[in-house]
Amino acid sequence: MNGLHLTADLSGVEPALPVMLDPEALRALCLRAVEQAGLGAVGELFHRFTPAPGCEQTGITGVLLLAESHLALHTWPELGGVTVDVYVCNLGQDNSSKAEALMSALIEAFAPRSSRRQQLRRG
Amino acid sequence: MNGLHLTADLSGVEPALPVMLDPEALRALCLRAVEQAGLGAVGELFHRFTPAPGCEQTGITGVLLLAESHLALHTWPELGGVTVDVYVCNLGQDNSSKAEALMSALIEAFAPRSSRRQQLRRG
Repeated sequence: MNGLHLTADLSGVEPALPVMLDPEALRALCLRAVEQAGLGAVGELFHRFTPAPGCEQTGITGVLLLAESHLALHTWPELGGVTVDVYVCNLGQDNSSKAEALMSALIEAFAPRSSRRQQLRRG
Repeated sequence: MNGLHLTADLSGVEPALPVMLDPEALRALCLRAVEQAGLGAVGELFHRFTPAPGCEQTGITGVLLLAESHLALHTWPELGGVTVDVYVCNLGQDNSSKAEALMSALIEAFAPRSSRRQQLRRG
């Protein structure tokens, strides 16, 4: 169960970016980034929240289940914010560098004005 | 985006517990615990990994998308281990006590010999 959990909380993200608003755009980004990092997606779930009255923008929650654990993102376009979780177990091999590569690719895609990164050793 | 992310890494869990092996049992536990904590599930995804040759036991990954963010669990019956993530945003109201209640209920359901809890302030 030894693992690494990376988090990034992004602010100052352009609210009109497709990956902030469109579940299909976010899904495509996640699948591409996971594959490029050398991790394996085994399941997916993307949910767009219902727009509130008077507000066209709404956030998305997206999760990819990985063979190595999971990736989860929440977007808050109304705040220009995104949170990202990349959690990998390190059973059999150390997936830490893949997790770091995945996180870097996702942060780059959102081009935030600032990001706050944290990490936990799991297990 | 202000939020609270709780993690628990459990060890010494009885591998034969239905919630360790059966996605439907884990799903029922999660939905009940989320409801009792006063949080709101808006989506779900449960995946059972394919048994390896010579090993009947396999783990489950389960995710509930919450109106308040997400709940994610991974079980490793072959190791007697479970990891739990409860992440709640605190927009509009402080959901921290609900997150703590949810985590406590889940840990109690797995009755681990030991647990390692950590938390991150998000946002």
